[in-house]
Amino acid sequence: MVQERAGGFSLAELAEAAGAEIRGDGSCRVTGFDTLEHAGAGQITFLNNPRYRRLLAGSDATAVILQAADLEHWSGNALVSDNPYLTWARVLRCFEPSREPNPGIHPAATVAEDARIGATAQVAAGAVIASGAEIGEGVYVGPNSVVGCEASIGEGTRLVASVTVMDGVRIGRDCLLHPGVVVGADGFGLARNGERWEKVPQLGSVVLEDEVEVGANTTIDRGAIRDTVIRRGAKLDNLIQVAHNVEIGENTAIAACTGISGSTKIGANCTLAGGVGLVGHIELADNVHVTGFTMVTHSLKEPGVYSSGIAAVPHRQWKRNLPRLKKLDEMAKKLRELEKELERLREG
Amino acid sequence: MVQERAGGFSLAELAEAAGAEIRGDGSCRVTGFDTLEHAGAGQITFLNNPRYRRLLAGSDATAVILQAADLEHWSGNALVSDNPYLTWARVLRCFEPSREPNPGIHPAATVAEDARIGATAQVAAGAVIASGAEIGEGVYVGPNSVVGCEASIGEGTRLVASVTVMDGVRIGRDCLLHPGVVVGADGFGLARNGERWEKVPQLGSVVLEDEVEVGANTTIDRGAIRDTVIRRGAKLDNLIQVAHNVEIGENTAIAACTGISGSTKIGANCTLAGGVGLVGHIELADNVHVTGFTMVTHSLKEPGVYSSGIAAVPHRQWKRNLPRLKKLDEMAKKLRELEKELERLREG
Amino acid sequence: MVQERAGGFSLAELAEAAGAEIRGDGSCRVTGFDTLEHAGAGQITFLNNPRYRRLLAGSDATAVILQAADLEHWSGNALVSDNPYLTWARVLRCFEPSREPNPGIHPAATVAEDARIGATAQVAAGAVIASGAEIGEGVYVGPNSVVGCEASIGEGTRLVASVTVMDGVRIGRDCLLHPGVVVGADGFGLARNGERWEKVPQLGSVVLEDEVEVGANTTIDRGAIRDTVIRRGAKLDNLIQVAHNVEIGENTAIAACTGISGSTKIGANCTLAGGVGLVGHIELADNVHVTGFTMVTHSLKEPGVYSSGIAAVPHRQWKRNLPRLKKLDEMAKKLRELEKELERLREG
Repeated sequence: MVQERAGGFSLAELAEAAGAEIRGDGSCRVTGFDTLEHAGAGQITFLNNPRYRRLLAGSDATAVILQAADLEHWSGNALVSDNPYLTWARVLRCFEPSREPNPGIHPAATVAEDARIGATAQVAAGAVIASGAEIGEGVYVGPNSVVGCEASIGEGTRLVASVTVMDGVRIGRDCLLHPGVVVGADGFGLARNGERWEKVPQLGSVVLEDEVEVGANTTIDRGAIRDTVIRRGAKLDNLIQVAHNVEIGENTAIAACTGISGSTKIGANCTLAGGVGLVGHIELADNVHVTGFTMVTHSLKEPGVYSSGIAAVPHRQWKRNLPRLKKLDEMAKKLRELEKELERLREG
Repeated sequence: MVQERAGGFSLAELAEAAGAEIRGDGSCRVTGFDTLEHAGAGQITFLNNPRYRRLLAGSDATAVILQAADLEHWSGNALVSDNPYLTWARVLRCFEPSREPNPGIHPAATVAEDARIGATAQVAAGAVIASGAEIGEGVYVGPNSVVGCEASIGEGTRLVASVTVMDGVRIGRDCLLHPGVVVGADGFGLARNGERWEKVPQLGSVVLEDEVEVGANTTIDRGAIRDTVIRRGAKLDNLIQVAHNVEIGENTAIAACTGISGSTKIGANCTLAGGVGLVGHIELADNVHVTGFTMVTHSLKEPGVYSSGIAAVPHRQWKRNLPRLKKLDEMAKKLRELEKELERLREG
Repeated sequence: MVQERAGGFSLAELAEAAGAEIRGDGSCRVTGFDTLEHAGAGQITFLNNPRYRRLLAGSDATAVILQAADLEHWSGNALVSDNPYLTWARVLRCFEPSREPNPGIHPAATVAEDARIGATAQVAAGAVIASGAEIGEGVYVGPNSVVGCEASIGEGTRLVASVTVMDGVRIGRDCLLHPGVVVGADGFGLARNGERWEKVPQLGSVVLEDEVEVGANTTIDRGAIRDTVIRRGAKLDNLIQVAHNVEIGENTAIAACTGISGSTKIGANCTLAGGVGLVGHIELADNVHVTGFTMVTHSLKEPGVYSSGIAAVPHRQWKRNLPRLKKLDEMAKKLRELEKELERLREG
């Protein structure tokens, strides 16, 4: 945790960087940042969730990012913003450790003779870049990453470390692929031949449009015939499975441990929470939101929130109720009989 | 997506390669392939699912693979097959980019002096092969892969890239391990010593028989005492966890995001859909099929289909019904009381 | 499977190593080990689960580890222990292949000039260690592993192979990180800007205290502001997701395929079974145990066992009952009406 930066910034500088308004002393010095609970002198913090408003009273923070409506609860310096979390993100960007551009190919990298590497790209130690690959300007190919034959990586994209991009995959500009990501492995295509399986060649590829982020150890399979496509600005968390020929729409965000089966299409501006599973060959409309641990087995054609996850209860309670679930149909039928019986009694 | 091949093939050549019958002009030229929806002149496609039969009418495809029963719906050239998807797989194999055999050890690979490397094996840049390992003929050890001490890799097997095979693991012939696969990491063996855990050494290994496929970032742990075993022709998708001493039967196929706990035995010709979980120390008979998102907590001794996954509904509906699940036992008891009451009323 | 060791040990030597009592001939020779079902002459085995007691009668094992209460069922040599599984773990440690210490930096590793590498540390081929990293005494950095800038790895810790530790991560002593582990990738932090997402810089880090074990392909994200923390002696299995700012308490053990969302705090001595999901910003008390496939959506403030997983049933049965689940609320209301009706009948 390094939350300080020597010299720091004036509050006015941060306001300008973040596009927020100042209340108080714009010349005050901000050298670091922390949570609202912990921020002290010299530090900036933010209030996003009204639930934490009570923490304002005791805070020694030099400045707080908050909404205008919360200003009355805070007498110190402030950056005022309709979207404090977004302002916070932009302020933090000022504190990010700067990455010295260090273009060039490390002597311990292996680059095929006919690969084209942008003049301002950096290829780190242990990276392996295969024949015909194209690495754009400002790209970072991190240590021990692999880029396959004829793959292309767009300007400004970062393969952080230990990333594997297979043959023919096309990645756009300003994407961010975290360690352990695999893009373009074969989809799971099998044809039955009696009792045995024969492999169905996976001859499509993967396209990641611009500004896609892919979390650690997430896998995105290549298409069987046509391509798997992740559209501009989509964001994927860790340990997600994206099967062959899936399409993920613009600005859709998917949380960790989710699995998406083959040929399923997810619209734009959707969110899938953690541990969600989607069967294959279905479509989710734009603005569909799926809550955690939900399985989706049919197309969801209307925007909205969908669920099937069940929250934990004490085991003893669960053990008492669960067996009934397996007899629910019987219960429903008994209930129907009772209704009829009662009707007969009333009438008779 | 590269779906063309210069020159291409005559339909007769494809028929021979795939073992299918021709209807129409065997000399027609097929230079590419696509889905039934998209295939045009020069391309071959297939009809497997009768649901898409209506697409035949408008197709410009040069040839279609289909069942005899569907011939009446298609007047063009055809490959006729009882199993169009299998025929399709074999036709696609003709279009696969050919891999030039390129035997030898890349100068940027690291191979222990006493490792035995088949004369026709290829070891790519960044691969590390440890002492005593044995790499068979025609094996491909992809870039940045690791093969541990005394591990053996059978003829024709491919470690695509960034694969890690630990010490003593034995992999058969013609297996295919996708990027990020880890075979032979320690099983999760812990013994309680008061509040602390002591590690139980994991001294078994892993055996993959022939023709096993393992998807990206899947992990197969080594056995604690005896070996974890994946039998001939079993196929595993991405991000699957196979714990220590699991056995997976011949030709069993397992979809992504599934977890199999320790010492569980799965029979032959089973299928587990995505997101399935199996507890430890149980057995699944041959020909057991488990649908998506199902948890299996007891042995399944009879072939058949098993389920416990719940499909998504609108969140509002779910919120109304779910709390009742936690009072199901109470409901069942009330129902029983009502029955008795009603009986008394009727009799009294 | 190598379950033999030339020469072996006397039973007395094993008793001393494991801290157990001998019954029978302490001078007998033990050259190997196996399961109770398979152990034969020259081998030691153990009985932990009383369910397997019947196997004692037919065993040819040279010695068995068991509880005093089971001695009457076994006439041969024995190591007597209150905790046979723990004794077994310690006996196995005697049979572990010894690792020759082989300190030094492999010529095919890449180590930054200003990284500090302990004199007795070993850095394997293909490893990449970045600027300012600190590698303690006796540390093993396995093949193709990556250690980021300013990261520190404590004494005796092993990064087995293909492990990625990002910038600034701090790992304690005697930790064990299995292949494919990623520690310190960015947390999933996104702020909405209209329809687009802006990245929230992830400026915290990760701390692993001493004796933490992390299974293959598990991911532990760096904190957003403060650090993600895994406390002393915690044990994580494979393919687990630990999001930013999670805290995991001492000696807590977590099984495979579990996902823990951001800022959630898990107490000490907890166990999470496989496939569990925890939402963000909740707290689990010490000694909380969560069974397999359970989703936890609220803080669990009392020790105890919690569940929401549903076990598989034959698909036909499931299909009959599941639709009723979606009408449970309706059923409950009908039941209530019937009760009232019946009351009226009785009274009227």
